[in-house]
Amino acid sequence: MSTTVKYPSVNALTAPLVERLVADAEVLRLAVTQEPGGARMVDAGAGVRGSIEAGRRMAEICLGGLGTVTISPSGPVSSWPYSVVVHATDPVIACLGSQYAGWSLADETGDSGFFALGSGPGRAVAVVEDLYRELGYRDSATKTVLVLEAAGGPPASVVAKVAEAAGLRPEDVTFLFAPTQSLAGSTQVVARVLEVALHKAHTVGFDLHRIVDGIGSAPLSPQHPDFIQAMGRTNDAIIYGGRVQLFVEADEADARQLAEQLPSTTSSDHGAPFAEIFGRVNGDFYKIDGALFSPAEVIVTSVTTGKSFRGGRLMPELVEASFA
Amino acid sequence: MSTTVKYPSVNALTAPLVERLVADAEVLRLAVTQEPGGARMVDAGAGVRGSIEAGRRMAEICLGGLGTVTISPSGPVSSWPYSVVVHATDPVIACLGSQYAGWSLADETGDSGFFALGSGPGRAVAVVEDLYRELGYRDSATKTVLVLEAAGGPPASVVAKVAEAAGLRPEDVTFLFAPTQSLAGSTQVVARVLEVALHKAHTVGFDLHRIVDGIGSAPLSPQHPDFIQAMGRTNDAIIYGGRVQLFVEADEADARQLAEQLPSTTSSDHGAPFAEIFGRVNGDFYKIDGALFSPAEVIVTSVTTGKSFRGGRLMPELVEASFA
Amino acid sequence: MSTTVKYPSVNALTAPLVERLVADAEVLRLAVTQEPGGARMVDAGAGVRGSIEAGRRMAEICLGGLGTVTISPSGPVSSWPYSVVVHATDPVIACLGSQYAGWSLADETGDSGFFALGSGPGRAVAVVEDLYRELGYRDSATKTVLVLEAAGGPPASVVAKVAEAAGLRPEDVTFLFAPTQSLAGSTQVVARVLEVALHKAHTVGFDLHRIVDGIGSAPLSPQHPDFIQAMGRTNDAIIYGGRVQLFVEADEADARQLAEQLPSTTSSDHGAPFAEIFGRVNGDFYKIDGALFSPAEVIVTSVTTGKSFRGGRLMPELVEASFA
Repeated sequence: MSTTVKYPSVNALTAPLVERLVADAEVLRLAVTQEPGGARMVDAGAGVRGSIEAGRRMAEICLGGLGTVTISPSGPVSSWPYSVVVHATDPVIACLGSQYAGWSLADETGDSGFFALGSGPGRAVAVVEDLYRELGYRDSATKTVLVLEAAGGPPASVVAKVAEAAGLRPEDVTFLFAPTQSLAGSTQVVARVLEVALHKAHTVGFDLHRIVDGIGSAPLSPQHPDFIQAMGRTNDAIIYGGRVQLFVEADEADARQLAEQLPSTTSSDHGAPFAEIFGRVNGDFYKIDGALFSPAEVIVTSVTTGKSFRGGRLMPELVEASFA
Repeated sequence: MSTTVKYPSVNALTAPLVERLVADAEVLRLAVTQEPGGARMVDAGAGVRGSIEAGRRMAEICLGGLGTVTISPSGPVSSWPYSVVVHATDPVIACLGSQYAGWSLADETGDSGFFALGSGPGRAVAVVEDLYRELGYRDSATKTVLVLEAAGGPPASVVAKVAEAAGLRPEDVTFLFAPTQSLAGSTQVVARVLEVALHKAHTVGFDLHRIVDGIGSAPLSPQHPDFIQAMGRTNDAIIYGGRVQLFVEADEADARQLAEQLPSTTSSDHGAPFAEIFGRVNGDFYKIDGALFSPAEVIVTSVTTGKSFRGGRLMPELVEASFA
Repeated sequence: MSTTVKYPSVNALTAPLVERLVADAEVLRLAVTQEPGGARMVDAGAGVRGSIEAGRRMAEICLGGLGTVTISPSGPVSSWPYSVVVHATDPVIACLGSQYAGWSLADETGDSGFFALGSGPGRAVAVVEDLYRELGYRDSATKTVLVLEAAGGPPASVVAKVAEAAGLRPEDVTFLFAPTQSLAGSTQVVARVLEVALHKAHTVGFDLHRIVDGIGSAPLSPQHPDFIQAMGRTNDAIIYGGRVQLFVEADEADARQLAEQLPSTTSSDHGAPFAEIFGRVNGDFYKIDGALFSPAEVIVTSVTTGKSFRGGRLMPELVEASFA
């Protein structure tokens, strides 16, 4: 008798997705380049147009092949009819073990000034973040991919750091990047609506192993050429227009508490457009209350007791002001 | 000159879907086991967590590869935003020839007390139900799959009965099962929203060969650990929150009559949560008016005349009370 | 260093979609025929039932493999819940370079009276339309496909004309056809909601190379056996129920002007059901104001400035009257 339940490899699952993305570079309007001995660079919106579809597929790669991202013609903000929908079978591994932009990548040896947060399957191979100890998850791979919300590919020093941490040669690493302002970049950021809920669940101390399924959606935010406005809109899409349902194995007290703690309404910064909040703190991202980064509205369904609990509320008028 | 219009084989169409499900067991959190000389057992929610995605794929297997099941971020019950959508090209073969849970499987020789209703492609090979005579459909296969809404796999006596009826060895049969209380189980039951409409069309005597296409949707019901409550919710999702559009070749009188006869509102039991109705009859399922098992609202479009007819009405408040 | 951004080949992208459609002929209820030395004919709704799914896949073939078409359970007309959603990465090539029904195909040498407008990838190989000079796009292929909104396959004279223009043998051309009245035909016509916006953008003189992405949706119109009523409904779905968002590289003045010029509300014929308008001009299609053929409501998002502009308005009550 054989049993085949094991933890999935986000790298094994995404390897074919990455190769298909590269094969479809013309259709998706990506630029794929590779210097001899260097990492493969896939530009999805810096020097190229890219596309919403490229962003949708970047998001599925971020999710480690454990989730789907779709564009749907409906949502809670009636004047912005198109939404990004994210569904992950194993939201903890998909969103925290892979999608979360948790790997801080600065050019420390060079003078490029490059800084970006690494996201996606490469994180699970490098496991440089404390988060992996808590997740009890680590992946191995002979090739990997890292996704960056960035206006360009990383310099050689960052490539070397990533390759070394992953125990791979630079040529076995693919960097997939797009700036927040681009079609692909804004789409893949809004597709983090479920991930921010998972991350906040972690922050408030909820036992992640009890989160068994999750679905989220948020309006597709219109692109803006200014980085701060673009970042503002993608965040507002989630913070004021995002909706998540989590399925948890928890008793009523824990599920109710999670529903109360999760939404963005718990933040003291809640209520203003994100770009305005960012201005208030003079652009110092780390002065923004971390509790703000979560969906507007959550439903927490306890599969243990059958009860569902709700928290937060959508603010369609704020989304409208932000997107206008 | 060659013409290639024939009836499809639900077993040929689903064989690759079943193998892909098994290959993705880790991702979907399924347990796949096979004793020597026994049937392959795929547990999607009894001893394992399973997932909504596993239920979605079970439902597509139930539909014989003739339909699609998707999770959509919208629906008629605003407080439960996620819906299950079912679209079948050939709804009669997909829903009645395959998906309908019509094969009564009791452990008659053993003492396990096992009882379940078999659903899916295996039914079309075994053709033990009278329904197949009326459908004029029968499939053949060298391997098959049977789906069970059950808390465990069938005992050897039931496996033997199924294999024998299908003319196959036990090792050529896959049993795919999940209890109603599980993520996968509840999802695949709600995905029966179109099938119940087809079954009721059959019950009221509508000529099934005149039903040419169909789409249905119902809110994804939250899981409940209690079987009766779980069954109640999945039924309420359909009976009070389900919506179906059927496309028929029929004159106006027949199409109008079908629209009037189809919805759950025609039942004398209509108006109370299903779990309450089940309690009233002291759990004797067969005392419940069969007319209740159908969608809340139907649109019947006559492609012969171009007129559409409507019947029933959604009861979002009842869905809300049931899911709360 | 290698760069792989190029224009895509709509024929290379659709060749596998066409072969899969043919392989699924039983499931989709298509008739596939080929006389020796003749073109391959795929009937999706003339002598066969076809299906909504066949129409969805025809539409994806029309889009040259550059877009997706989905059926969604929501939309702006609440009594007609199912919508067709179209998303194209490169809407200019997808919709104008391929999907637009721009190739006028009459039987000039025979006496069949056959007339249809050719749509899809075959147009980009034949490039007989002036439009291709403006697009700066031309494709090459060893096999091609042409889609026809027609009640039958083309006669030999039309096949010969198409094959010659494409520089191919008749046996290398597939004709995929369905009448407007059929399930497949009506679906693939409603899936033109994005294309009509692109075509109108072209007509009003907007620089097409600045349109970088697009999404559209319109209610799935119920079939009607009468050609004029069927055509009326598919047009009403778009003209009064269609919604499109275009993403453009343009300054505010140009984006605002496009939003004002695009919707169907700019037409003097706007406000009556299409079948009625068609009657007023005694069935002379070319007397209808061309400005009418566009979505009811548009959002034009300038990715250059970040501003979005709106034009038009949905008329759900007119859609309801048309579909009733």
